[in-house]
Amino acid sequence: MEELYGVWFLIGAALVFFMQCGFAMVETGFTRAKNAGNIIMKNLMDFCIGTVVFILIGYGLLLGTDVAGLIGKPGFDIFTNYQDFDWSGFVFNLVFCATTATIVSGAMAERTKFISYCIYSAVISALIYPIEAHWIWGGGWLSQWGFHDFAGSCAIHMVGGVSALIGAKILGPRIGKFKTDDKGKVIKVRAIPGHSLTLGALGCFILWFGWYGFNGAAATSLGQLGSIFVTTTISPAIATVVCMVFTWLKYGKPDVSMSLNASLAGLVGITAGCDVMNAAGAVAVGIVSGFLVPFGVWLLDHKLHIDDPVGAVAVHMMNGIWGTLAVGLFATTTVPGNDSLNGLFYGGGAELLGKQCTGIGAVAAWTAAAITITFLAIKYTIGLRASKEEEIIGLDATEHNLPSSYADFMPVPEKHSGITVSTSKRLPVSKAVTVTDVSAKTSDGSPKLTKLSIILKPEKLEALQNAFNEIGVRGITITNVMGYGTQMGQKTYYRGVEREDIQLRPKVKAEVVVSKVPVDDVINAAKKALYTGNIGDGKIFVFDVENAVKIRTGEVGYDALQGEEDN
Amino acid sequence: MEELYGVWFLIGAALVFFMQCGFAMVETGFTRAKNAGNIIMKNLMDFCIGTVVFILIGYGLLLGTDVAGLIGKPGFDIFTNYQDFDWSGFVFNLVFCATTATIVSGAMAERTKFISYCIYSAVISALIYPIEAHWIWGGGWLSQWGFHDFAGSCAIHMVGGVSALIGAKILGPRIGKFKTDDKGKVIKVRAIPGHSLTLGALGCFILWFGWYGFNGAAATSLGQLGSIFVTTTISPAIATVVCMVFTWLKYGKPDVSMSLNASLAGLVGITAGCDVMNAAGAVAVGIVSGFLVPFGVWLLDHKLHIDDPVGAVAVHMMNGIWGTLAVGLFATTTVPGNDSLNGLFYGGGAELLGKQCTGIGAVAAWTAAAITITFLAIKYTIGLRASKEEEIIGLDATEHNLPSSYADFMPVPEKHSGITVSTSKRLPVSKAVTVTDVSAKTSDGSPKLTKLSIILKPEKLEALQNAFNEIGVRGITITNVMGYGTQMGQKTYYRGVEREDIQLRPKVKAEVVVSKVPVDDVINAAKKALYTGNIGDGKIFVFDVENAVKIRTGEVGYDALQGEEDN
Amino acid sequence: MEELYGVWFLIGAALVFFMQCGFAMVETGFTRAKNAGNIIMKNLMDFCIGTVVFILIGYGLLLGTDVAGLIGKPGFDIFTNYQDFDWSGFVFNLVFCATTATIVSGAMAERTKFISYCIYSAVISALIYPIEAHWIWGGGWLSQWGFHDFAGSCAIHMVGGVSALIGAKILGPRIGKFKTDDKGKVIKVRAIPGHSLTLGALGCFILWFGWYGFNGAAATSLGQLGSIFVTTTISPAIATVVCMVFTWLKYGKPDVSMSLNASLAGLVGITAGCDVMNAAGAVAVGIVSGFLVPFGVWLLDHKLHIDDPVGAVAVHMMNGIWGTLAVGLFATTTVPGNDSLNGLFYGGGAELLGKQCTGIGAVAAWTAAAITITFLAIKYTIGLRASKEEEIIGLDATEHNLPSSYADFMPVPEKHSGITVSTSKRLPVSKAVTVTDVSAKTSDGSPKLTKLSIILKPEKLEALQNAFNEIGVRGITITNVMGYGTQMGQKTYYRGVEREDIQLRPKVKAEVVVSKVPVDDVINAAKKALYTGNIGDGKIFVFDVENAVKIRTGEVGYDALQGEEDN
Repeated sequence: MEELYGVWFLIGAALVFFMQCGFAMVETGFTRAKNAGNIIMKNLMDFCIGTVVFILIGYGLLLGTDVAGLIGKPGFDIFTNYQDFDWSGFVFNLVFCATTATIVSGAMAERTKFISYCIYSAVISALIYPIEAHWIWGGGWLSQWGFHDFAGSCAIHMVGGVSALIGAKILGPRIGKFKTDDKGKVIKVRAIPGHSLTLGALGCFILWFGWYGFNGAAATSLGQLGSIFVTTTISPAIATVVCMVFTWLKYGKPDVSMSLNASLAGLVGITAGCDVMNAAGAVAVGIVSGFLVPFGVWLLDHKLHIDDPVGAVAVHMMNGIWGTLAVGLFATTTVPGNDSLNGLFYGGGAELLGKQCTGIGAVAAWTAAAITITFLAIKYTIGLRASKEEEIIGLDATEHNLPSSYADFMPVPEKHSGITVSTSKRLPVSKAVTVTDVSAKTSDGSPKLTKLSIILKPEKLEALQNAFNEIGVRGITITNVMGYGTQMGQKTYYRGVEREDIQLRPKVKAEVVVSKVPVDDVINAAKKALYTGNIGDGKIFVFDVENAVKIRTGEVGYDALQGEEDN
Repeated sequence: MEELYGVWFLIGAALVFFMQCGFAMVETGFTRAKNAGNIIMKNLMDFCIGTVVFILIGYGLLLGTDVAGLIGKPGFDIFTNYQDFDWSGFVFNLVFCATTATIVSGAMAERTKFISYCIYSAVISALIYPIEAHWIWGGGWLSQWGFHDFAGSCAIHMVGGVSALIGAKILGPRIGKFKTDDKGKVIKVRAIPGHSLTLGALGCFILWFGWYGFNGAAATSLGQLGSIFVTTTISPAIATVVCMVFTWLKYGKPDVSMSLNASLAGLVGITAGCDVMNAAGAVAVGIVSGFLVPFGVWLLDHKLHIDDPVGAVAVHMMNGIWGTLAVGLFATTTVPGNDSLNGLFYGGGAELLGKQCTGIGAVAAWTAAAITITFLAIKYTIGLRASKEEEIIGLDATEHNLPSSYADFMPVPEKHSGITVSTSKRLPVSKAVTVTDVSAKTSDGSPKLTKLSIILKPEKLEALQNAFNEIGVRGITITNVMGYGTQMGQKTYYRGVEREDIQLRPKVKAEVVVSKVPVDDVINAAKKALYTGNIGDGKIFVFDVENAVKIRTGEVGYDALQGEEDN
Repeated sequence: MEELYGVWFLIGAALVFFMQCGFAMVETGFTRAKNAGNIIMKNLMDFCIGTVVFILIGYGLLLGTDVAGLIGKPGFDIFTNYQDFDWSGFVFNLVFCATTATIVSGAMAERTKFISYCIYSAVISALIYPIEAHWIWGGGWLSQWGFHDFAGSCAIHMVGGVSALIGAKILGPRIGKFKTDDKGKVIKVRAIPGHSLTLGALGCFILWFGWYGFNGAAATSLGQLGSIFVTTTISPAIATVVCMVFTWLKYGKPDVSMSLNASLAGLVGITAGCDVMNAAGAVAVGIVSGFLVPFGVWLLDHKLHIDDPVGAVAVHMMNGIWGTLAVGLFATTTVPGNDSLNGLFYGGGAELLGKQCTGIGAVAAWTAAAITITFLAIKYTIGLRASKEEEIIGLDATEHNLPSSYADFMPVPEKHSGITVSTSKRLPVSKAVTVTDVSAKTSDGSPKLTKLSIILKPEKLEALQNAFNEIGVRGITITNVMGYGTQMGQKTYYRGVEREDIQLRPKVKAEVVVSKVPVDDVINAAKKALYTGNIGDGKIFVFDVENAVKIRTGEVGYDALQGEEDN
């Protein structure tokens, strides 16, 4: 039978590999289209670079001969003694290692430099993960001592999640995520929706599917494997239901993306104890996991003001900790294959719980220290974060010469282009009234109506809107257009092919019809908002309007243009 | 070897779980983008809610001690006696149960209230499926009697399909699916294309992949498993080829989405008898399945006028019935593992066929009765269908506060906004001529040309087009634009973050240049069509046009604007 | 244990089936949205049609009793002797066969007629693949002789890749891929980006996942399987890293789509020797594979001028050859399960390498001859390539009546509509100056500004841009719009539903403001560029512009419109 579980072990490893696909889809789907290629590339490279460094150093640190309970002895058996190499163990531990690295990318998405990503990802796979995993699974001190983490709530998810939290904190939020007042205090949290909920959901389903391998691969009897499948199914199902109901009650509607997060949270939660908990334990784990997602998202958004685009901290760190603790509460010897572990609620007293807490503390401390040093070293040498301009344009274009990962679809112009908006500067009414007086009249004495059609760069849209807001211009209509033009500057390549020098580039056309506000004021406001001195600042065209009708009220001409509402 | 097939049984269960992903992708891809998040959520929740109720009641009804051949005795062994629980059996039956529930959502997509979905989905997983599955697989009367349904053509697909048919009938069609005359008679069937054929295809491939687990999981010998893989491959391949050729001949082109449906149809068809049919039987099943898809789609669209957005009835109900019947025709003991069953064409007489028919009838009757009661109970209490406004806006926004599941992509305005159009009211020529007479002239005596640029809500586009049609205005140009404006009304949240009060909202700009028809008539027609009295009814701007040229004919000015054709 | 590997063999076959999904996603994602449904359909049908012909002829040719080492004896055991049929072998060989066929479609994507695709795909599955696979795996001369290709670098990937190369060459490039001068010489290679990098990446991940089945399925011991997993992981990881670094150095940025290609290249490379190479061999294979991708893409684009939209030739043909050769270099008996094969670098001398070269030559010759005959026979009978108009409109609409595979999203207008552009005809300055002289003045003596708004068919955009370029008109703004209009011509169907006669059709609005160039010249240029004489040639509207402002310089009126730059 050993051989049966040996084959299943490898099938499980393949399923865990497939989870890389799940992570790529979740992280891409829950972020913006302009960074999709970059996120794909990061998810691809963490596995590939991870493989290289895992061969070179990680595998030895993890599974080499134990040195003082702290590390394995590095070696090159894979090259020098392939005949007696533990092939299955290598593949299995590699795919687990890559999972740890990939968790981090989600929380740091949309603003991390690609080269910096490659470096810290390599450090995680070469050092951070292998050392703590040696403690837990490689014969190190925690494994000798009786700490239990069957499939990695602590070793993988908490470690990934802690790294994600620290990385997101050091990086700072994406431009536009938090609106601050003049003193930098956060006065508004903004939602930045992902570009494809269906890809995100696809990723979640793939992850859940792969998790049967993740949790089950190391099983060694049919009863144990069956029980692992039961707990690995119940916990995420319960977590999802709990999260759905909670968001429904709390926010008025069942939230889709948090419910998807909750499925993952339930899976993370059950990972440590999937082999020692029964159905009741899985239910308990799932209930808490279901609450941890909205709590974690709220905590980061509204209290810590840390920007985690995909919810990685809530899902992996919080539930990784919770799942590891839960072993100390719900482990029970009624589960097949568990002969010895009983948690607090099953007569085992606090001993196991204590060990779990100690393990969590030790691993978290190691991870936090090591990753902080890594991030800071990168930050103060090559830099961790993309430039503001790169972030606004998107990392696909700036890091990979991809004008778009979705070349055939028309993008929506972004709203939050990163300008800190002062909300206190609305034009006083007196000034607005004065302006009305000077508006031009037509020959029959009615106020003249003028349309301004402004072609601008998409990233300047918010600045324009703010400028218009200040002078009392309302009712702007935005159209995505493409401008033909000559591209200046350095050559760029896509698949080795040089780009055209003349190409269509995305522009925004903002149209506004004014009467009260003098046309010159509008032009000046637009010029001020849009001017950078570079090619492509845009143009303003002025047209005469014969008439205007506001449909709701039937007002015409000058009157049709008044009021706060939009078109 | 028992343990080998025990492990494979669980691998098969994981594959069946993955089919949830396939269903989610198929149903989302074949429906509209505005409901994508809602459909994802429904597919996620049917599994998660299903798990809860299956634990509480469904599992016992299905596999508990048989009571009079009708139901199993409910129980809580999963909590009270976990040590001796049938872990594998629980997981396996749960993922099968969830498959039944998920089939229904496709046929009722884009118009079912989310809470009502949660309720009926729970009823299916708690009662409807477990009871009939007890008959067939849980030791109930059909299993005692010799009815054969190896992997669920009847127990799962027909049951899901019958529920889908009844649900779609009770719900009624999506707005715009059928064009009716003044008396409500259907005079035109309209295609409402799905928003992502690639996601739909992805789902189909995932389903086919998962089906090897679905059909094969319960195999207990290598020969049997190999033979199941053969029949499970041949039937869908044949069905797809047949459907492609048929649609090619019938409609002039090979239809992609029906061919994808046909793959699933062939899989559904072979499910009952995958273990008792040989290759010839699989070919026969596949041929019929290939025809059933276009037939079923045609029947529902053109004869029954039932709106099934994804073809669930044609695929699951019709092929579920066919596959169950086919066992009675093609079962043969030449297949490994089948020692006793011979169908009509293999010397077994009509006995097995009779049993299969009886089983189909009994299960269909139970399902129809139970689901009809469920739907009607929901309909007359909390309501089954979303409001007309919710449906037009889309369930993502109205049920889940998701402004878009694809926030970065520009949507295409919808055409069919649900107005029943009378086709008989075209303006008589005489009136159009009269109108010409009163059109304005410019100073040089040529007819004046005027452009009207109208900003409107996307859902009002069809009304505007109809209004213009009636007064003889042709050649409208539609542009998707975004309007800046202040949102009124209640607060909404996305991932717990309150939405901005000022935001970009999708609008449509309709532009038309007129000469013959008086401008005031056009303005009045537009006002009448667009007026609702609410904020956001839009505005009309009027511009002078110097000239117009029709490229095809070279006509200029007034003449350039005549004719029925578009731009 | 034999039964264990028998079950795993079937699981592996299911994974290989799932690779069909991967290929479909890769090929669709890396090509344009207007052909997405067509590519999906081709990928679906190559498996389904392949199944039909494999049953009828291919299986016998491959695995029937050997005839002179060249072919197997065709037969119908599957129907006549199902009881003793090799069920598992049939399924396994079928999914391998379908992989070969599907490789070709990528290189020939976006321009091959659907019916021609069905035919050549059937020929590959019925004859070309089964015969050479008989040589290698079915007891034919290469297998008798000691040629080694464990999982098909040669038998599948090279054969698919050679067919792809020849097909792409015979077809010719997609319209717009290569810009030629008047004599047809290629003066510019253009990138035609795929429409969804995320779908492409999804496909790559699915393929990598499935490859564990592809390479591992035939393993017969745990050590062998584990070692196969090791080599199948290391080679693609290394290849991806190498390709990323190379493109980074060579083109300035790490190229996403070539890195994804490189993962597949590394998998193809290790396929032949995954069972006889150790980790060092896998590293060596991966390094070369990583270079072969950018080299192959460059070679086809810039030297051979063969248009391979998805990189199939670089990935499958080049790495298929490389991987097969590499067996002769790196095979070593230190690998579990390999008792006899040693390559050049492991003391085996050149014997194995010689056999590998001979095998490659023989199989390539057979494939090239057979597929060339097939393609030419199709070309000179029913035709291989879609018409120019079909290609420009897209094969979804023309081959399958799918107006769009993404009906809810706004498409971006295409730039390269296939006109061979002469770059030498820019207007001489003298003429442009003359034009200025005749431009109209307004009453105050300043040059009159005029806006032209032109509604045109999307495929005519490039022609218009070229025409404007020639007369010195710059700064065109392009908007996607929809035109309402009556469709003429034959009835078309979607899922058996007849299309509306009045529908929204995509149009492009090109807006330009001119002063220097006389309006009549602009109108004439536009008329000449857009005229076809058919309905829908479009219209030109002329508006008076009060003023224009160039934001960068502050210039107004006439001056604002000068200069080469875009808006």
